[in-house]
Amino acid sequence: MPQIDLNGIFPPITTPFIDDKVAYDKLASNIEKYGQTGLRGFVVLGSNGEYVSLSEEEKRKVVETVIQAAPEHMSVIVGTGCESTRETIRLTADCAALGAHAALVVTPHYYGGKMTEAALIKHFSTVADQSPIPILLYNVPVYSHVNLTVNVVAPLSRHPNIIGIKDSTGNVIQLGEFLNQVDDDFSLLVGTAGALFGALTLGCVGGVLALANVAPQNCVRIYELIQAGDFEAAKKLQLKMIPVNKAVTAIYGIAGLKAALDLLGYFGGEPRAPLLRSSDEEKSAIVEILKQADLFGG
Amino acid sequence: MPQIDLNGIFPPITTPFIDDKVAYDKLASNIEKYGQTGLRGFVVLGSNGEYVSLSEEEKRKVVETVIQAAPEHMSVIVGTGCESTRETIRLTADCAALGAHAALVVTPHYYGGKMTEAALIKHFSTVADQSPIPILLYNVPVYSHVNLTVNVVAPLSRHPNIIGIKDSTGNVIQLGEFLNQVDDDFSLLVGTAGALFGALTLGCVGGVLALANVAPQNCVRIYELIQAGDFEAAKKLQLKMIPVNKAVTAIYGIAGLKAALDLLGYFGGEPRAPLLRSSDEEKSAIVEILKQADLFGG
Amino acid sequence: MPQIDLNGIFPPITTPFIDDKVAYDKLASNIEKYGQTGLRGFVVLGSNGEYVSLSEEEKRKVVETVIQAAPEHMSVIVGTGCESTRETIRLTADCAALGAHAALVVTPHYYGGKMTEAALIKHFSTVADQSPIPILLYNVPVYSHVNLTVNVVAPLSRHPNIIGIKDSTGNVIQLGEFLNQVDDDFSLLVGTAGALFGALTLGCVGGVLALANVAPQNCVRIYELIQAGDFEAAKKLQLKMIPVNKAVTAIYGIAGLKAALDLLGYFGGEPRAPLLRSSDEEKSAIVEILKQADLFGG
Amino acid sequence: MPQIDLNGIFPPITTPFIDDKVAYDKLASNIEKYGQTGLRGFVVLGSNGEYVSLSEEEKRKVVETVIQAAPEHMSVIVGTGCESTRETIRLTADCAALGAHAALVVTPHYYGGKMTEAALIKHFSTVADQSPIPILLYNVPVYSHVNLTVNVVAPLSRHPNIIGIKDSTGNVIQLGEFLNQVDDDFSLLVGTAGALFGALTLGCVGGVLALANVAPQNCVRIYELIQAGDFEAAKKLQLKMIPVNKAVTAIYGIAGLKAALDLLGYFGGEPRAPLLRSSDEEKSAIVEILKQADLFGG
Repeated sequence: MPQIDLNGIFPPITTPFIDDKVAYDKLASNIEKYGQTGLRGFVVLGSNGEYVSLSEEEKRKVVETVIQAAPEHMSVIVGTGCESTRETIRLTADCAALGAHAALVVTPHYYGGKMTEAALIKHFSTVADQSPIPILLYNVPVYSHVNLTVNVVAPLSRHPNIIGIKDSTGNVIQLGEFLNQVDDDFSLLVGTAGALFGALTLGCVGGVLALANVAPQNCVRIYELIQAGDFEAAKKLQLKMIPVNKAVTAIYGIAGLKAALDLLGYFGGEPRAPLLRSSDEEKSAIVEILKQADLFGG
Repeated sequence: MPQIDLNGIFPPITTPFIDDKVAYDKLASNIEKYGQTGLRGFVVLGSNGEYVSLSEEEKRKVVETVIQAAPEHMSVIVGTGCESTRETIRLTADCAALGAHAALVVTPHYYGGKMTEAALIKHFSTVADQSPIPILLYNVPVYSHVNLTVNVVAPLSRHPNIIGIKDSTGNVIQLGEFLNQVDDDFSLLVGTAGALFGALTLGCVGGVLALANVAPQNCVRIYELIQAGDFEAAKKLQLKMIPVNKAVTAIYGIAGLKAALDLLGYFGGEPRAPLLRSSDEEKSAIVEILKQADLFGG
Repeated sequence: MPQIDLNGIFPPITTPFIDDKVAYDKLASNIEKYGQTGLRGFVVLGSNGEYVSLSEEEKRKVVETVIQAAPEHMSVIVGTGCESTRETIRLTADCAALGAHAALVVTPHYYGGKMTEAALIKHFSTVADQSPIPILLYNVPVYSHVNLTVNVVAPLSRHPNIIGIKDSTGNVIQLGEFLNQVDDDFSLLVGTAGALFGALTLGCVGGVLALANVAPQNCVRIYELIQAGDFEAAKKLQLKMIPVNKAVTAIYGIAGLKAALDLLGYFGGEPRAPLLRSSDEEKSAIVEILKQADLFGG
Repeated sequence: MPQIDLNGIFPPITTPFIDDKVAYDKLASNIEKYGQTGLRGFVVLGSNGEYVSLSEEEKRKVVETVIQAAPEHMSVIVGTGCESTRETIRLTADCAALGAHAALVVTPHYYGGKMTEAALIKHFSTVADQSPIPILLYNVPVYSHVNLTVNVVAPLSRHPNIIGIKDSTGNVIQLGEFLNQVDDDFSLLVGTAGALFGALTLGCVGGVLALANVAPQNCVRIYELIQAGDFEAAKKLQLKMIPVNKAVTAIYGIAGLKAALDLLGYFGGEPRAPLLRSSDEEKSAIVEILKQADLFGG
């Protein structure tokens, strides 16, 4: 089984559209720019990548594009979770064949009321049993309305082909429970920049952060400062990044994230409908927030 | 534009699996049996049809199968909602080409926090503009965590190609608001048998009911009694059906619904993973509930 | 044990304040006016009575005032639920001594996560055991965030001193479950006018309705029409009242309810802080809604 | 205005009952024992003190008892929040007269849907204007179902008589927002031990922790280790305490907290109904958890 280094910062990259079609060249050029930033790798087809709005064919071409464009030293983790175990296995196999280094599998959630601990453990185990590449669990209740508790995560952490979790709750109490009970070689990645400092100091090995799309160097810097033991500086930078993170996630969403990318030298573009484009007022607010956070370079 | 008669009872039919593969022949034979029950038509690829767990190819073949097997006099409504407007338009066109009479379009919901009234109105309008067949809105917050309020439904009801809504909340207060404000030729279908009597007496024209899979005649009977003005008998039958409805929805879910089908002469089978199969205890409980409700004929 | 007639419409009356002090004379004159409307009785110290904002002394004086002012033929039900069983018992005994005909006991809810079925059954049973007057359960999850399920209500319905429930969910599915399983002499009162028609046709014996404060005659008329079997006229009036009901509950709350009272010849006044007063815009909107519903007599 | 030192650990003390009556002597002896533990002071009449289940008279006597029993060097913060602004002002004045050093004011929450930012800002400002002692905001959505956002907390932090907040969400993202925007002399106290390490490293000055009732020395130790810059040891102790904290809060609640107190040399006793007592199985589980965490001393 190939090893993948999860220690560090991963952006869940956006999918660029032009006239509602995937702009693969823009995707490739974004990837190349990220190569200079100290990021450990990429998460492709995550929530910020609008994976739910892509056709199967588009998903494959996005993965291919990223794998070709990504620098040698960077890992490519692909979101392959579908509602059914069967479809998840199939998409994971396909993405492995395309060269993905690991698969990020979101909790099935449409039938959330029936996603009992037993159902979730069986789902993830079965996928991991059959996957040619390592599996990361993906816990994102803000979208899925299902929370992966320690009762699910702890036993799954002992599966040889499940190597970690991206937890987007930002809930340090739950992260503490995970740390207490998961297998030693199971890695915790925090899934929201708002809790990056708290998660890394507690024991997470890295982060998959929407913010890392627009402020990769600052995210990497927080990670490095904590590695170096300079908590005070890390905390200061963490607090400075909070308004930016809130803008490109909770407040303005993916449309806002893309608007910020356009302002910062990457290709952002517009989200795919039904997500609405940012209004001019929203774009102005985003400019101001990026300015306040000193993200407009020199 | 072809007209479709929505007055009456529609089961959101289940998708039979054998060894995790769609059993199209079992599907066809179920459809034929339903032809004798007084049902107005079928809803295919709804939540009870596990549409989220099917591949695109399977979806098409399911639709084809039902359209071929369905008696002339019965309508076939197909669930075609996807997360993106684009994919919804594409799948709707495909199902129209296969012969579907109308499309049932669920609210996009993964990015629920951004599904503002404006976003939802734009999504459904765009789909309806481009659909060759009439559109029904599908409001099912128990799965989607998004509610279609009257502020969304009222303007959409005036779109010439949006002919109705399936509302699965069972919330008669909200149904009353809809009735007050929707266009005259916009039809309300209630989406849960627990509220069938209340919804029909208030002004809904019919129902799309999980219960109609297992107790089609009783659902049709409630409808007919209310049409005939015999509210007392309708209410009595409604109350008798409540435990069955709860069993095949909230308590035992789709696995329970399928177990009940197997007991009642239809093909049920097992749900697709990650949904778990009913345990033996659950199956025994279901037998008892069906017995209490006099559903074992003879 | 004195009998109380629950068949009909009860307003959960508001508590008038002048300069933040209870205006007992205004309360009495409201009560007298309601005497001419066909209402069956009053609910005092309910949620619309701002019971949580009154001191113990004020509560007692409010009850005294209403009991003195109420016409002989009308019942007075008093909200006596407190967080602890002990305090509930004490306040119930006090209100019984003041002449209350029955007590409406809200679910304890601060420790909602621990309000298991066992805890709730024990609480209500203990209160009922010790109460000199009959007890009505009060289910109002919009405020309490705890739902009384049929598993709690059915066994409690068999307690000789628990005579009914006010259910404010407006959920006809749940009301159906209650009707199926409660004791024969246990009465269901619906707690929201939005579901009045649906609840009464299903089998509720009456309603405790915020709307009955501002439109008592119309609420009584819906009740009487259904008693007389004229469902069509009842439904029409129900639908006409929906916007008024929504205005004086969900949209504008108690402040709006009081503003409407002032417009309709009762004393409304302002709510007690922290509830904010209605703005002028809100008051204008309320005028318009009352006008549309033909509530300005003449 | 007297100054109060908020830097450190405060237990929200329990209220002992014997035969459902407050055992003031047991309360006093618990207070005396806590005097030896390094705690900064006490929070009286908080959620763990079952304040919602006490009569007004009991509340006063509890405050009196604690103030008399508390060592000179320890602060006494009293929970004085009521649903109405008026009652909160009155109870705060009374507790100030009894010698309380500060008041902890929970968000009004019964009419949660109307607790807009404007309503909350007005409520807390009015209380603070009139209080003879400093005010702490109390944010505890798990009980109140209302969250105090930064939009409310930031302006209130500039009120001269509002000195801090107890935030029980354990949400480090929100704590970060508070830190970014509150007044310089406004203190943040974390309200759940599960997030103690994360909150203190981020910039909270202390904690009000249910866990500090049963493991005061360990909570103080975590605080001191972080003060001393020994994050590694602090983190280790934090993780060790997580199962204990979860047991005496989310899992077994106040009944479990009291059972643990009885096991550890304090007086716990039983909670007041409707809270149920711990079962024998629960008590055995608690023994095991305390043992695992080395809380049984020598």
